[in-house]
Formats: sequence, C-alpha cells, structure tokens
Amino acid sequence: MKVVVSIGGSVLVPELGTDRVAEHAAVVEDLVADGCRVGAVVGGGGVAREYIGAARDLGANEIELDQLGIDVTRLNARLLIAALGGDSVTAPAKDYEEAGEALQRGGISVMGGVAPAQTTDAVGAALAEYVDADLLVYATSVPGVYSDDPNENAEATKYDRLSAADLVDVIAGLEMNAGASAPVDLLAAKIIQRSGMRTIVLDGTDPDRISRAVRYGEHDGTDVIP
Amino acid sequence: MKVVVSIGGSVLVPELGTDRVAEHAAVVEDLVADGCRVGAVVGGGGVAREYIGAARDLGANEIELDQLGIDVTRLNARLLIAALGGDSVTAPAKDYEEAGEALQRGGISVMGGVAPAQTTDAVGAALAEYVDADLLVYATSVPGVYSDDPNENAEATKYDRLSAADLVDVIAGLEMNAGASAPVDLLAAKIIQRSGMRTIVLDGTDPDRISRAVRYGEHDGTDVIP
Amino acid sequence: MKVVVSIGGSVLVPELGTDRVAEHAAVVEDLVADGCRVGAVVGGGGVAREYIGAARDLGANEIELDQLGIDVTRLNARLLIAALGGDSVTAPAKDYEEAGEALQRGGISVMGGVAPAQTTDAVGAALAEYVDADLLVYATSVPGVYSDDPNENAEATKYDRLSAADLVDVIAGLEMNAGASAPVDLLAAKIIQRSGMRTIVLDGTDPDRISRAVRYGEHDGTDVIP
Amino acid sequence: MKVVVSIGGSVLVPELGTDRVAEHAAVVEDLVADGCRVGAVVGGGGVAREYIGAARDLGANEIELDQLGIDVTRLNARLLIAALGGDSVTAPAKDYEEAGEALQRGGISVMGGVAPAQTTDAVGAALAEYVDADLLVYATSVPGVYSDDPNENAEATKYDRLSAADLVDVIAGLEMNAGASAPVDLLAAKIIQRSGMRTIVLDGTDPDRISRAVRYGEHDGTDVIP
Amino acid sequence: MKVVVSIGGSVLVPELGTDRVAEHAAVVEDLVADGCRVGAVVGGGGVAREYIGAARDLGANEIELDQLGIDVTRLNARLLIAALGGDSVTAPAKDYEEAGEALQRGGISVMGGVAPAQTTDAVGAALAEYVDADLLVYATSVPGVYSDDPNENAEATKYDRLSAADLVDVIAGLEMNAGASAPVDLLAAKIIQRSGMRTIVLDGTDPDRISRAVRYGEHDGTDVIP
Amino acid sequence: MKVVVSIGGSVLVPELGTDRVAEHAAVVEDLVADGCRVGAVVGGGGVAREYIGAARDLGANEIELDQLGIDVTRLNARLLIAALGGDSVTAPAKDYEEAGEALQRGGISVMGGVAPAQTTDAVGAALAEYVDADLLVYATSVPGVYSDDPNENAEATKYDRLSAADLVDVIAGLEMNAGASAPVDLLAAKIIQRSGMRTIVLDGTDPDRISRAVRYGEHDGTDVIP
Repeated sequence: MKVVVSIGGSVLVPELGTDRVAEHAAVVEDLVADGCRVGAVVGGGGVAREYIGAARDLGANEIELDQLGIDVTRLNARLLIAALGGDSVTAPAKDYEEAGEALQRGGISVMGGVAPAQTTDAVGAALAEYVDADLLVYATSVPGVYSDDPNENAEATKYDRLSAADLVDVIAGLEMNAGASAPVDLLAAKIIQRSGMRTIVLDGTDPDRISRAVRYGEHDGTDVIP
Repeated sequence: MKVVVSIGGSVLVPELGTDRVAEHAAVVEDLVADGCRVGAVVGGGGVAREYIGAARDLGANEIELDQLGIDVTRLNARLLIAALGGDSVTAPAKDYEEAGEALQRGGISVMGGVAPAQTTDAVGAALAEYVDADLLVYATSVPGVYSDDPNENAEATKYDRLSAADLVDVIAGLEMNAGASAPVDLLAAKIIQRSGMRTIVLDGTDPDRISRAVRYGEHDGTDVIP
Repeated sequence: MKVVVSIGGSVLVPELGTDRVAEHAAVVEDLVADGCRVGAVVGGGGVAREYIGAARDLGANEIELDQLGIDVTRLNARLLIAALGGDSVTAPAKDYEEAGEALQRGGISVMGGVAPAQTTDAVGAALAEYVDADLLVYATSVPGVYSDDPNENAEATKYDRLSAADLVDVIAGLEMNAGASAPVDLLAAKIIQRSGMRTIVLDGTDPDRISRAVRYGEHDGTDVIP
Repeated sequence: MKVVVSIGGSVLVPELGTDRVAEHAAVVEDLVADGCRVGAVVGGGGVAREYIGAARDLGANEIELDQLGIDVTRLNARLLIAALGGDSVTAPAKDYEEAGEALQRGGISVMGGVAPAQTTDAVGAALAEYVDADLLVYATSVPGVYSDDPNENAEATKYDRLSAADLVDVIAGLEMNAGASAPVDLLAAKIIQRSGMRTIVLDGTDPDRISRAVRYGEHDGTDVIP
Repeated sequence: MKVVVSIGGSVLVPELGTDRVAEHAAVVEDLVADGCRVGAVVGGGGVAREYIGAARDLGANEIELDQLGIDVTRLNARLLIAALGGDSVTAPAKDYEEAGEALQRGGISVMGGVAPAQTTDAVGAALAEYVDADLLVYATSVPGVYSDDPNENAEATKYDRLSAADLVDVIAGLEMNAGASAPVDLLAAKIIQRSGMRTIVLDGTDPDRISRAVRYGEHDGTDVIP
Repeated sequence: MKVVVSIGGSVLVPELGTDRVAEHAAVVEDLVADGCRVGAVVGGGGVAREYIGAARDLGANEIELDQLGIDVTRLNARLLIAALGGDSVTAPAKDYEEAGEALQRGGISVMGGVAPAQTTDAVGAALAEYVDADLLVYATSVPGVYSDDPNENAEATKYDRLSAADLVDVIAGLEMNAGASAPVDLLAAKIIQRSGMRTIVLDGTDPDRISRAVRYGEHDGTDVIP
C-alpha cells in the first residue's frame, strides 16, 4: 500500500519541540514496518509564520515570502528525518521525481514545499497523484472538513464523507469567505478530484489517528470519496 | 518601467513556425530599447497538447504530464530567445530568482513553467509580483476577459475594465463551468488581486497590441484595476 | 546481460503518437523481465526537426539548435518513461553517471542527448561503453548498414556483417557524400571500434526485431563484429 | 573598498523581528552608496539553536545538526535580503564563487553557512580572503576580544588591539576552556592570521558601530593587526 | 560494521601510478565482501601540492587554492573508483548526504574534499560522524600519533593508545609548532572527540594494515579511545 | 571583436609551472584591455595523460577516462583564472551557456571540457560558434596545419592558408593514419566548416603569437578561410 501523509506545520511543530515529531516519525516507521510505502509532506507552521511576518514587514513580496516558507518546511522535514532511523532518508526531496525515487528505493520519502504560490496541501495531493498513492491523509489541526470554519461559526457541521466534487465546492466556498480557514486548499481539492484518490482529512494532533486510519480505515475525520 | 508579458503558447506558436515568434521578439526588443525591463513568460501551446495527449494515453499521471508541459514551455522559451538578439539572454530562467537576476543584469528574462500543478498564467503573475512589475500583460488568444466563454456563449460580453476582485469572481465562475475556458486561471487572478498589480488581458495574436498597450495604455482588451 | 538500445527519434515517434512508444516500452520491459539490464537512448525525430528548423530561421546558431534538439530528445525520453511501468524510472538521466546509477538500481535507464555537437547515436555508443554493455543495438529507420545510402543509390548493398574498422570506413565515406545519410554517425562508429562492443544495426520500426535480436541474435540487419 | 561583515545570528535576529535586520540592511546600503562593496555573512542565532536542540533530542548527529544550522543561516540571509532594496541581491550565495560573482555584479552579496563543521565566523574570514577584502568586521554580541569570557570572568580585559598571532593564541586558550565562549572561532582566527587581513571585532547590537568602524576606523571593539 | 577510511593523498598516490590505488581498492572490496559498509575519503597528495604551488605563484588566494585542492582530491577519488568494480560507485560523492545515500544503496562511497578551509582529515571524521560509523581509520604516511613530529624530533614517541581528549591536546600542540606536521588536523581531532568514535591512525602505505586493523583490531598504529 | 582561444594543455602547462600560464593570462588581459571579448578553452596536457594512463591501467573505460580528462582541463582552467586578475572570472564555465553569460558580463570566460567523447578542440570551435566569434585561434604545440604529421613525416608541408573544406579533408586523412597526430580534431574541423568562422592555427608555445595574430592578423601558422 502506498500512502501520502500531509502533516500540517502546526500539527508537527506546534512549537519547536520533539514529542510531536517523534510520534509522527514512529507512525511513519510503523506503517513502513507493516509493508506500506510512505511519502510524508511537511508544512511550515509557527516558525514559517514568524519568518514570513518579519520579512513582510521588511518589504518582501509574496513570492519571496513563499520562498522563505518553503525553506522552513524543509527545515521541518529535516526534523522529521532526524526522528526517523538514520538509514531511511538522508535529506528532504526537492521535487516529485526525487521523492518518487526515494520511495522506490527505501520506502520512505520526506519533503516540504516545492514552488512559490503553492501550499504543502497541494504538494501532498500532487505527490499522491505522482506516485499513484492508494490513500492520501491530511493530518490537520481541525478534525475534518466542515461546512464552515468551526472556529468562526459554531454551527459548522463536520462531513463524515464527501464526494471529491463536493469537497471542491465546500473549499471554494470557504476560500471566498476571507475570515475562514479551510483544512486543505482549493488546488489540493481539485487535484484530489481529478485524480480520483481516496482521501482522509483528520485531526493529526494525535498521530495514532493516522496509523489507525491507514491500517483499519477507522477515524473521526472526513472521508473524501473519489 | 518593468513589464511582465505572459504569452500563451497558442499565441506564440500556433503552429511551429517563426513569424509569430519573430514579431513577439521584436516587440520585446523595442520595449527594451525604450527603456523597459521585460520579463517574458511563455506557454506550451499545440506541441504541449500533443505530447501531453500521447503521454496520457501511455499512462502518465497528471503530474508527469505537467512536467512534460513545462519542458515544452521551455522549448518555446528557447525559440523566443533565438529570435532575440544573441547578447540578451542565453537560456530560459528556471525559477523566479534566475529570472530576477537576468532582468537586473540584461533587462530581459525569458521563462516557461516552473512547477507541476501551476500554469504559465500563474507563473506570469508570480514573476510580475516577484520583480515588482509596473504592468502585467496577458497576450492570449481571446481579446480580453468575458462574462462567459465567448466561444461557448454568443452573449458573453467583454469587460473593458474590471477590479481584481471581480476578475477573481469571473474566473472562479468560469472554472466551475467545465466546458468554458478562461483567459487566465484562478491562481493567476488571485495573485493579481493580492499584489495589486495593474494588468491587461489582450489579444496577442497581433503582437503590436502588446507594444501599444505598454507604451500608450491603448488596447481593446480588458484592464484589471488593482 | 547488459544491452543499450539506441532508438532513433523517427523510429520512436514518427509522428507524435503512442503506438510505437508503447511497443518499444513493451520490448524494454520484456527484456528486463528476462533478466537483462537495458539502457535506452532516444533521439529527436520530427519534432526536433521542426523546432530546429524554426529556430534556425529565427537566427539561432548550430549550438543553440543542438541544445533545442537535446531538449526534444529528453521530451521523447519522458514519453518512453511514461509507457514503462511507473516504478522503473522517474526521469531521463542527464549524463552517463546518472544513467549508470539508474541501471544499477532498477535495471532500466532512459536518456536523450547529452551535449551539443554530439548525436544520440554517439550517446548510445558512449553509454554502452560506459556501462560495459554486452550488446549495443541501433533501432533505425533503415534495415542495416549499406554500402551507400539506399534511398539515394538503388545499388547500395546491405552488409550482413562488418568489422568495426570497416564500419568506420563505410560511415566516413558516407559522411563525405553530402547527400547521403548514414544509419549511425562517425563518432558512434569510432566508439564502437575502440570499445570492441558487439553491435547490431536493424530496422526498429518493428520493435519486436529488437527483442529477437537481443534474445536469439536473430535479425535482418547488420552485425558489427568487434 | 571591499568589506566583509560577519553578523552573528544573535546580533541580527536576537528574536525573530525586523528592527535589527532593517538597521543592518541600512548600514550595508549606506556603505554601498559610499562606494564600498559589501559581503555580508549571517549567522543562525536563536532559531538555529532551537531547531538544533530539537533535532539533537530526536537523535540527529552533529553533521545533521550543522546542516540544519546552515539552513537557518540561509533563512536569516533571506531576511537581510528582504530588507535590502529589491534590485541588489536575489538569493543567498551558496558558496564563495557565487558570492564573489554577486559582489562583482551588484556590489553586495549575502550568504550564510557553507558546509558542516564550519561556523559562519570561519565563512566570514574565508569570504574576506576569497574576495581580497580590505577589511573584515565581526559584528558580535560582545564588544570585542577579551582575555577571557567576560560573562564568566569579571576580570577579563578587552584588547583594544591585538596581532593576528595573538588572536589565535587567545582564541585557542578560550576554546580549551569548555565553559567559555569566544567572539570568533579558532578557524576564523587562523584564516585571519594567514591572510593578513585587517579585522575589527565589535559590538554589533548597534549596527551604526559597523558603519563608523568601516568609514572612519572608529570603534570601541578590538583591532586585529595583520 | 560501518567503517570510514581516510586515505591520505600521499598514501594513495605517492606518485601518479596504479599499484597503491589497486591495493587500496582491493582492501575496500574485501571489507565489503566481508559485510562491511565502507566510506572512503581520499586526499590530494603530490598533484594537489603541485597545482597549489603553481596557482599560489600566479596569485591565487588560499580559498582558491583550497578549491583547486578539492578538485584534485576528487580526481584521486575517481582513480579509486576506477579500481573498484564498475558496479559499485559511479562518481565521487559531493557532500555527506550523497555519500550516505551511496553507502545505503551499494555499501561503498568514495569522496574527496567538501569545502574550502577544511582538510580531508576533517571530512573523514565528519563522514564517520554523519553515517554513525563504528570505526574511523586514518591511513597516513606516518605510523601513528606521536608526541612530536617524528621527522623533526628523533625523540618523538608514538602513542599506542590515547584518549580523544589527549589527541586534541597533542594535535593542538603540534599545530602551534609551525615546523611540525600532524597525522590528522585539529578539526578532525575535535570531531573525533565530540562524536566518541573509535579511531585508529596507522601507516597506510601498506594497505593490508587497514584490512587487519578493521577485521581483527590488529595494528601498529595508535588507538584513539572515545 | 569576439575571439575564442583554444589553448592546448601541453601548451599551457607543458609541466606544472607558472610561466606559460602567466604569459597566456597576460595575452588574454591585453586583448580585453584592447576591447576584445575573449573566451579561453583550456586542454588537459601532461597531467591529464598521467591520470588517464593510471585509470586505464586500473580498468576504467574510455568514458570514465574522458571524465577524468575533463576534470583536469577544469583544473588547468582554474590555473589560468588564478593568473587573470581576481575580478574577471571566478570559476570555469561548465557549459556554453555559462560561458556565454560570463562573456557578456565581464568580457572573459574560461572553460575546459564539456562532455565525454569530445575534445577541447571541439569545445573551442563550439564555443566560437555559440558566441558568434569573429575569430577562433588554436594555440597548439605545432606551428600550423600540415599535409601530414611533421613529427612523423619530414616531408610534411605546412599550409599557410586553407579552405575549411580542405581542413576537413586534411584532418580526416590524418585521423585515418593511426600514428599521426593532428593539430585539431575532425569534429572541430567540421564545426569550423559549417559555421564559416575565420580560424587560425598557430604555435602557442610563445603566447605573444596569439596576441599578434588577433590584433594584426600576423602569424606564421595556418589561416583557415571560411
């Protein structure tokens, strides 16, 4: 089984510490021990936000900020690599081809962002599409896809399952609403739709949820049905 | 004045020939002779479509197809470079930083696509944002932004001017409509909106229109107002 | 057994389609399934000629044209990669060392041109020499090595077998004759001679001929004897 | 005049903010406006320490930690670049040759670390040696070179001037003393000695001190005399 | 067992010939056949000294000389690669990550220098640290670590065993003494100390000594005890 | 005026010393001071021969030997760069595009070999073609083009002038004669022919001859007339 796990930066490194990273690494290693190939895509989180905030105040434009953000996702990818055993991966993959090669060779690949104007959400979906993954898991800081941003609207309801086309509509609606945040971005949703990939969005703050979702299909998040 | 011109592949190389490329190169050189710095971003066009069609039939996934498409945009960029005088640019820039450096050094940069899951429309907007361009011109095969796809809907009306926010709405609407094609894609529209860049969408099949639009602001296309 | 197959562009993609590519890919995969390691080198063909013609008219010099041609060979290499199963090769090798590594790792490597002023004929011979191949096969659009260009001279006779030294002489003679085209170029012939490699030149428009030649040594082309 | 300024990470980004970065950028720009060429080498500071601490707890070895540290110095270099005007530098130089080229071309280069097991102190000295700088300035968090670590030993005295050979001795002594920290490391001191470069070590927390030191030779730090 | 062997240039290529290289390659291959993974780091030797001497006379600075020296170490690494069987390594690793990947993949990696202002002694120690080697062997032209340079001081005595901390002290002392040469440099010694690696310094002019030291722990050199 | 000078390795570094390199550098600098742009291509010479001989004995194949040879040409290129003033070139160009860019930027580029199975003779002709040079000069160890190898045949006569087509014939004849050596190789001759470049072959052991040939067209070698 081939799985891509997209781990949000605020999920992996809510602050610069080790526990969460070690737990995620353990989940990846367990899945590999079970015979899975695992591609992990790591986000930027708080450190990215701080660097980006500082650089914006200093006059950087959005593309330069994205470049900074990519660099931080790659730092976070190195943290995850440090937590994985020394013989699996040596450095974050820089593009899909490097990631695909690492997956073929050692069964694990780790990467961060790829290019400006593209989130790691989209990178996760693109990597899953590139390696023909059987499953794509978004480990986010919200427990699934909601009808609205649950932090903004108390009446937002979580979808247990959703077609990919509906996912695109929901995310498009959320992105129109400036205040709301979405668990994955619109480009990622469109890639999921076009590739017909099975996708799960779940609360990644407890990494064991990823493990259970991959092995047994059990989770409290949202299933996106091709 | 710093200008980024995004030239659609079907505008630059409707078929593999030289006239259109030579005319576009002449426009770029005239603008540079007038004191402009010009960043050109070139699309894939018919050759890209043919390679992508063949590779899709052979089983390539969308990311691999995008990679092929990027390679063709870079071939087209080499054609434009060939038509420019030998001392201006030597090779297509591979990313925004290389393009920015070429622009500083010689006043011209030429590039194609950058990363999978991102059109050259978006690359054009991103380059314009990265180099803080004064103007972004889309030289497309339709004469501007329409309320609907003019090839599909005879009642589609062209906008003479449009706010960037309205551009995003129009494009989002078009992208929801599977059959319709849009002159620029949604990501490009969003970058235009966030960066507040002056943007013109015009019919690039007559390259002189680009020249007049840049120099005198005269054109029959659509002005996107920040 | 280690084999390098040099597939002419006009053999692989006589026009941009899929059948021929799929058949060549099937031959490569069958050989690998039989225990061979296969290095494929792919030419430019018609698309290369079109781009080169356009760029020449636009004023490009020969080295720039070669660079364009290399880019097209790499596009064609991506087509062949698309047709091979997804887990074998991810991208065309850029030089002999990358190709050698891919061959060690996964048993297949695919590459196009390497440097200006050098054909993919020569790249094929050089790759075969580099990896110490047991056999080098040229899949060309003529059925072997002739005493003269068979398209120009009806009395040209095909050699069934030929020493490498004689191959060099024949090719040198053909290259002196401006109108004639040769199945491999002089540099390739010289590399074949110096390396003492067994080489077969055959009609590659039916890819099964490659398969039979490699497995059973049966073919209607020309055997070049070290 | 060619100057290399090595700015400690804890001097440039004591915490992730903008004031200090903006002030250092202003100093660099003023020097360039005065006709200097300026190579800036930037350290890692607090963010580097945090990432390195986390990765060490996760089991990374020292070389992996150094690699993380280098990545953070390059992030900090991007911050400084953001604060410099957009047309001067596009990205951190990756090695001395890139830095030298940037310096020739635009009069400014910015870089971080280069290779594991080498501090940015040493990179600063090596860059100064490589570009044949007239002056090397260390902008550190202590006001100069002391006979001992002033934070550990209240009787440590600051040297107003020092020969390069004595600098090597003082630093060697400090490095033997596990608890003490030195304003530059031993490799940097040895490079300074062998190259015979004029060097100033000063308190960089007020960036104007750098400016005054370069222009008028006025400072309260330590002069290292070739 | 994972071993890093640092082979001095004057040990591997006392003059440009083949015997010594072939013998060292045989030792590496025997160790691999025994189940070891072997990382070899190769120095510059006489050719490096000649190029560096010429370039110094021509006005190159020390960093440029180091760059030349690195290039020569990589040439020497290619010699060793040539002597190893063709299917093991294709090219010298350019950094620790490439070397680590080669070691995982094929059990052998070969590299030369990495960055200016850093000897291959230090690269050897850094590679050993990076791959968590069980043993680091310095194959030098002196038979171990001495209390002083044995070529300068007839009363210098060889240490049979030495703690890593004492190694640092001895080397630091030797480096203070301008005329003396040390079997490993100070940075290497410090890396050995911090990483707690078992290290042997021995006479590499007879390559079999390396083999015996790795397999049986038997040698006449110096054991550095973590 | 744009000139490419191809300096044979045995001309530049008959042995590893400095005089000849310094003299060639002085010629390049004088030409640049006169307003020329100069691209220098440097061969391998004796050191290349020694490395190649050793590696051949160790079992390297011809492509690996070529790679070694390329590395040595780049070392020699660094020697020439060292002898040029520090602000002109930082590193050898790796391909024609880098060389072209250096020429545009600073008026000088220096390079060695580019790809296996291609001599620096051919690289010189290709660079000249790529940058549209006005003149190509081969500074060789024989004083021009002869009807036969003058070291082998006392009756060989030197051509004062020769058409490019005749050059190709003469070189082709020499290459057929296994014992003879030619001042430029066949590929170089063919590039000269197709590009219609003015070319001079002269004795480069006295570098002033290059200078006089470029400035005044005065030389005792062979003029190749387009």
